[in-house]
Amino acid sequence: MFFASDNGSAVAPEVLAALAADPGPAMPYGADPVTAEVTAMIRTLFEAPEAEVALVTSGTAANALALATLSPPWGAIFCREEAHIEADECNAAEFFSGGGKLVTLPGEQGKLAPETLAAALARFAPGDLHAARPAALSLTNVTELGTLYRPAEIAALTAVARTRGLGCHLDGARFANALVAADASPAEMSWRAGIDILSLGGTKNGLMGVEAVVVFDPARADELRIRRKRAGHLMSKHRYLALQMRACLADGLWLRLARHANAAAARLAEGLAALPDVRLVAPAEANLIFAELPQPLAHRARAAGAVFYDMGGKGNRVRVRLVCSWNTSDAEVDAFVAALA
Amino acid sequence: MFFASDNGSAVAPEVLAALAADPGPAMPYGADPVTAEVTAMIRTLFEAPEAEVALVTSGTAANALALATLSPPWGAIFCREEAHIEADECNAAEFFSGGGKLVTLPGEQGKLAPETLAAALARFAPGDLHAARPAALSLTNVTELGTLYRPAEIAALTAVARTRGLGCHLDGARFANALVAADASPAEMSWRAGIDILSLGGTKNGLMGVEAVVVFDPARADELRIRRKRAGHLMSKHRYLALQMRACLADGLWLRLARHANAAAARLAEGLAALPDVRLVAPAEANLIFAELPQPLAHRARAAGAVFYDMGGKGNRVRVRLVCSWNTSDAEVDAFVAALA
Amino acid sequence: MFFASDNGSAVAPEVLAALAADPGPAMPYGADPVTAEVTAMIRTLFEAPEAEVALVTSGTAANALALATLSPPWGAIFCREEAHIEADECNAAEFFSGGGKLVTLPGEQGKLAPETLAAALARFAPGDLHAARPAALSLTNVTELGTLYRPAEIAALTAVARTRGLGCHLDGARFANALVAADASPAEMSWRAGIDILSLGGTKNGLMGVEAVVVFDPARADELRIRRKRAGHLMSKHRYLALQMRACLADGLWLRLARHANAAAARLAEGLAALPDVRLVAPAEANLIFAELPQPLAHRARAAGAVFYDMGGKGNRVRVRLVCSWNTSDAEVDAFVAALA
Amino acid sequence: MFFASDNGSAVAPEVLAALAADPGPAMPYGADPVTAEVTAMIRTLFEAPEAEVALVTSGTAANALALATLSPPWGAIFCREEAHIEADECNAAEFFSGGGKLVTLPGEQGKLAPETLAAALARFAPGDLHAARPAALSLTNVTELGTLYRPAEIAALTAVARTRGLGCHLDGARFANALVAADASPAEMSWRAGIDILSLGGTKNGLMGVEAVVVFDPARADELRIRRKRAGHLMSKHRYLALQMRACLADGLWLRLARHANAAAARLAEGLAALPDVRLVAPAEANLIFAELPQPLAHRARAAGAVFYDMGGKGNRVRVRLVCSWNTSDAEVDAFVAALA
Repeated sequence: MFFASDNGSAVAPEVLAALAADPGPAMPYGADPVTAEVTAMIRTLFEAPEAEVALVTSGTAANALALATLSPPWGAIFCREEAHIEADECNAAEFFSGGGKLVTLPGEQGKLAPETLAAALARFAPGDLHAARPAALSLTNVTELGTLYRPAEIAALTAVARTRGLGCHLDGARFANALVAADASPAEMSWRAGIDILSLGGTKNGLMGVEAVVVFDPARADELRIRRKRAGHLMSKHRYLALQMRACLADGLWLRLARHANAAAARLAEGLAALPDVRLVAPAEANLIFAELPQPLAHRARAAGAVFYDMGGKGNRVRVRLVCSWNTSDAEVDAFVAALA
Repeated sequence: MFFASDNGSAVAPEVLAALAADPGPAMPYGADPVTAEVTAMIRTLFEAPEAEVALVTSGTAANALALATLSPPWGAIFCREEAHIEADECNAAEFFSGGGKLVTLPGEQGKLAPETLAAALARFAPGDLHAARPAALSLTNVTELGTLYRPAEIAALTAVARTRGLGCHLDGARFANALVAADASPAEMSWRAGIDILSLGGTKNGLMGVEAVVVFDPARADELRIRRKRAGHLMSKHRYLALQMRACLADGLWLRLARHANAAAARLAEGLAALPDVRLVAPAEANLIFAELPQPLAHRARAAGAVFYDMGGKGNRVRVRLVCSWNTSDAEVDAFVAALA
Repeated sequence: MFFASDNGSAVAPEVLAALAADPGPAMPYGADPVTAEVTAMIRTLFEAPEAEVALVTSGTAANALALATLSPPWGAIFCREEAHIEADECNAAEFFSGGGKLVTLPGEQGKLAPETLAAALARFAPGDLHAARPAALSLTNVTELGTLYRPAEIAALTAVARTRGLGCHLDGARFANALVAADASPAEMSWRAGIDILSLGGTKNGLMGVEAVVVFDPARADELRIRRKRAGHLMSKHRYLALQMRACLADGLWLRLARHANAAAARLAEGLAALPDVRLVAPAEANLIFAELPQPLAHRARAAGAVFYDMGGKGNRVRVRLVCSWNTSDAEVDAFVAALA
Repeated sequence: MFFASDNGSAVAPEVLAALAADPGPAMPYGADPVTAEVTAMIRTLFEAPEAEVALVTSGTAANALALATLSPPWGAIFCREEAHIEADECNAAEFFSGGGKLVTLPGEQGKLAPETLAAALARFAPGDLHAARPAALSLTNVTELGTLYRPAEIAALTAVARTRGLGCHLDGARFANALVAADASPAEMSWRAGIDILSLGGTKNGLMGVEAVVVFDPARADELRIRRKRAGHLMSKHRYLALQMRACLADGLWLRLARHANAAAARLAEGLAALPDVRLVAPAEANLIFAELPQPLAHRARAAGAVFYDMGGKGNRVRVRLVCSWNTSDAEVDAFVAALA
């Protein structure tokens, strides 16, 4: 009953098998054929023949590199209050951008409303020499609260951002989960909705530690590659990242794994919804669930072997986060619900 | 005949096997038992019970994190002219340190002499408000020219550094190769010789992409860990780094792999030395060889399938770098020498 | 009728006279006797014999240097939403600190409540590896809305900050105005209330461009001095800053100038309060007034020659900022009120 | 007998008088008419109608802002070993550029030879992902050794720089001294010789603390202005900088002051050259002289009241730096020479 995080799950067997499949030597730093193949695959999948792909080993690296490419050091980067880049990356965006400012915005259920963004932008007078310069918008999908932006919602937000020339970033640590939840194509959920740079997560979806930064604007590709090297994020045995990503993208494995995780979460949500004392904080649209329940129930679940994060609470109720993975089993889900019942 | 770099070689089979050996879930970000085990192993191997260990996925990250921990933004970091941190890391040390300055020093055969360091330090008057503050010494062993510092040589350099309060870093991308070449213990080659932070390389020695930053001064451990997180170098599925490192350190595999690489290089050096037109630039003390030879010979070797880097040349002679790996075979070596003969 | 800002006023004649009073050569970079004298004067005035004093030429420099000394690059700096460091300094605090994060907090009338700070701090779990580290509190007095913290209010806030080890900064661009408004001593309004570093403004109080960073904790003095030099804020002809500051502090000129500005603002507030269509946004406690009035009235004042900033509005009402200076005359004030009447 | 530095001299009386000449209020941050006038004057003087002018209060600020505008964080900035930006600005260039690297080059008599620059550039292979990117050339004129680049020499160096796309910066802390020494026009010594950004010094030439950054490429002007603000170098009472610069540029005062300083240095050099034990290190082409003399002679001069810097020595000989200013008198010069005789 491991619901702590999808980054606590093991590597998918297809991916492990792929690592063993290329025993010969290869030129380092991405000058190998598998890396070229992965770039081609992502271009095809995203219907973006000029997109650049840079593999890195952490989501924080992917996000911070993307944002630094979109924002100058004097830029303002607009995001949700609980965005991972704001709350969980230890000032990485500020570091990589050379001192950029995150402007945090409120919203319902982990999502940003276009009018909230518009109002925030209006507080920055064009040409004001004293303030930060609005530079980038960063969205997360699946959101940090487990909710989902549909492509049209993203497009509405990036349209507002465009009115002030902002670059648009999508933190897609759970991009595959978002795609299958929205039944959208990769292009629809990214560049067609106005996204300039995507952090395409792999680690939470069965890889060992691989994320792809996908840069849809070729003019920004060089800078991102230089930034990756300078930050120590250009792996020397790069083909081992590429091998993982190739295994994941081939034959739609990434979508199958994400679909499994979402289905497990749906089953879990259904089970929780039937319990009188448990309340879902937000609709379970992908593989994350936030629920409020009495403290004693949480203790009982832990005593039964469940692992999950406590997000704080009021009175005797506690908010918990439950994350399902590519390999969460129905048995685990059912055992958890039974432990609460 | 792959002599381009030891980071072009595949992952050792023992390491690949280890990756598949832990299929269950685990807490992310290093809060797993294998990570704790690796820390304990390194403490034992280095006879340093308080050392802190931070695993990262690239040598540039290891070096830049170490140097930023040793040097303030206004610091001067002393190193050799061709140090990897100066020549091949795209300003990573400057980036991570927030604007530190690398002061490059000359020397023979890739090595720094204590009197050269002393003279350089003398140019920085104590208390000079206008100059950078001498902050760190960074050595590389095996050096970038394939030569070796013995522990006493390192100790002589760090002793000079101590006279001005510098922190001492060792870039040990090929630390195992240095150890077996010098027949020294890990402690002798590091903290007993005055090293405060070691970049302990694994990637060039059969791992997929794992380096350990070993911090011998516990007072610096916290800062290094925070810097690792902020730089996106704290892997979420951290146990997979630990599994690799454990496999490598267990039963002395790391030293066996390094011994193999060094022996291959010795065989290669012997073969080259016997060729009339080939000159070794520096003694082959570990697994790197720099040789000068006529351009046509280099072309002939490439035509025969050899892969190696050209380091520039004068007239019709060229300098080449030849690197042997944990899996370089005698047959490869002999074929290369034969191609030149 | 110049109410745009107190930094638009001319230099006080006593200060201009002082500049001409030292025609001989002097050692640069602060190694001159006048600088030493100013340090001694500030130590005496603040009853802080070990305080360090660093003169700079802008308030942004003073604030950013102070905050970078208090916060590491991974720190969180807590301040009000409309703090000058957040809204008007173009990411200087982020730049100087190497990527620190400003956490903005709401409040009434430009002021922060201790419980708001406590709640914000509670959202940062001690030891959380992923979040920024709470590092500093920055207050402004006189506040950006023209209101005043009394010493006990500052002490209550710094007491909360101390519970988490934060360093405490006071942006005293209008420190003299605050002192005379609160009838407090410099010590009461700074270190006795828990302030570690003070930006002591001079520019808005009749100087040409001089602010003093006063560091009450001697352990932080060296770092601040190095940071000042590195940022290009150590003036070479430093004595000319010191001459200004000496003239200002001698015989209580600084307090007389501030008292004049506050009195002019009080007269202005009284005049405005008597007008039926004008509403004071916050009590006029020092030399800044924020007022809401009908747009046509604002136009009429401008047509009569008044200069002031428009802070936005709703419907046909507009919020204006009116700042009085050391040389604002009763005639100006009365003419402005008359123009609105 | 003050020969320590031209930044130890007082402010010229014409400049002091100018400060008192504008007692009314003015819009801050450069939005005043005097600032506009200074920009127009510099454009005319430099025959550069589109040049942008940014006044700052220190040479370090001018240089670091210029270099950060020319070099990305991953850039290499080429300069002489003893360049002020390398040796005397406490990593300001590295700080402002976000981690740029200064590549120091040797040369005779404080000057860089085009072939030395070309050779250094050749060590950076175009497109090398691992190395810093050659980004800028920084020259100093008058050089740090008191020698002079003529316009054709600068043009030869910037021509080499252009082959690799470098931006070209001139540290003109003593630009006026260079102009009169070379009998060149401002345009000839700057943009016509290939300079993109000039640090035009005023402080060492009789101002209180004003340098102008002159940006000849309009495309870089906005970034420089933003960087100035972000670094706390946009003065609020900006007109007082402009008043100084206007006084200095009007009627050729700046050139007269520089001519005086150069003439004093020539007289001093002539006097020293006649002394048997004194050797000039480099030809005295402007207002700086470096001389080697016996230690007892240096002591004797100090005992007689002379103030100057000791630059180190060998055996019983010492190298001293002697700087003449806009107000160095013949009597001072003669007294100094007499003290040594």
